[in-house]
Amino acid sequence: SRELFVLTYGALVAQLCKDYEKDEDVNICLDRMGYGIGVRLIDDFLARSAVKKCRSYSETADMIAQVAFKMYLGVTASVRCTSAAGNEFSLILDKNPLVDFVEELPAERASLCYCNLLCGVIRGALEMVHLPAEVTFLQDRLKGDAVTEIGITFLRKAEDRKHKRN
Amino acid sequence: SRELFVLTYGALVAQLCKDYEKDEDVNICLDRMGYGIGVRLIDDFLARSAVKKCRSYSETADMIAQVAFKMYLGVTASVRCTSAAGNEFSLILDKNPLVDFVEELPAERASLCYCNLLCGVIRGALEMVHLPAEVTFLQDRLKGDAVTEIGITFLRKAEDRKHKRN
Repeated sequence: SRELFVLTYGALVAQLCKDYEKDEDVNICLDRMGYGIGVRLIDDFLARSAVKKCRSYSETADMIAQVAFKMYLGVTASVRCTSAAGNEFSLILDKNPLVDFVEELPAERASLCYCNLLCGVIRGALEMVHLPAEVTFLQDRLKGDAVTEIGITFLRKAEDRKHKRN
Repeated sequence: SRELFVLTYGALVAQLCKDYEKDEDVNICLDRMGYGIGVRLIDDFLARSAVKKCRSYSETADMIAQVAFKMYLGVTASVRCTSAAGNEFSLILDKNPLVDFVEELPAERASLCYCNLLCGVIRGALEMVHLPAEVTFLQDRLKGDAVTEIGITFLRKAEDRKHKRN
């Protein structure tokens, strides 16, 4: 049952909104906290999922969307590759359980990325498996978008990785 | 998988420790946040558990320890009645998943009730079913006690309740 988690997350965001006047500062703080969580969560994920090493960014993105999201949020995301170079992906969530109890953002918090912790978690976890990445919200249903979309840009070129391995 | 929740809860406590110098203030804040969560969580609990109305404080305490704890924390607690009047109970946890990633409290945070949110959650949920109660940690393994023990004191006398019903 995820409700206690979702409500506790809401309390965390509310506290940060008390602490920081600017949405941007709340977003940064959530991302930073998420990073610290991802760094610790990756061990749990690798142990539980018993996944093999991903051999491409595409496999890695699928793993996050299908296995990790299912494991920790109870939903899966669909994945779309968004760059010809093959290092940018969108994870698209039709349903985001983290916002189950949020009706809408208050008008004065229009720039808040409510779920920004998730970006940090993904970033931290990826860094621990030597895949530095930028992770940001591209669309957010809380802000009136049709879906919630998280963008992941792997920072090393796919070719660099192959090269390194050989 | 509860790890994301447990780590997020840790981030919340860490943030409050940044915000408030005194442990007592952190404890109060966690209790207050928990209260707000309990007030909202009770509907979810009643809907999912499909429990019947409890007919005694003892039944209510068992319901929290066996059903609610299992549902939201994945563990059960044992229950002990601690007053002849039948309105005080201890919930005893051998294992507290909320502290899975906490090794020990830092020396300067010796009075922190790390899991105080739980007390607030129980208090808030009970209040919504018209059972005002005081809920506090009596023992805490994080502080070196042998078990973790949450005390619940129902504030109306059992006789008052019966009287009211008749």
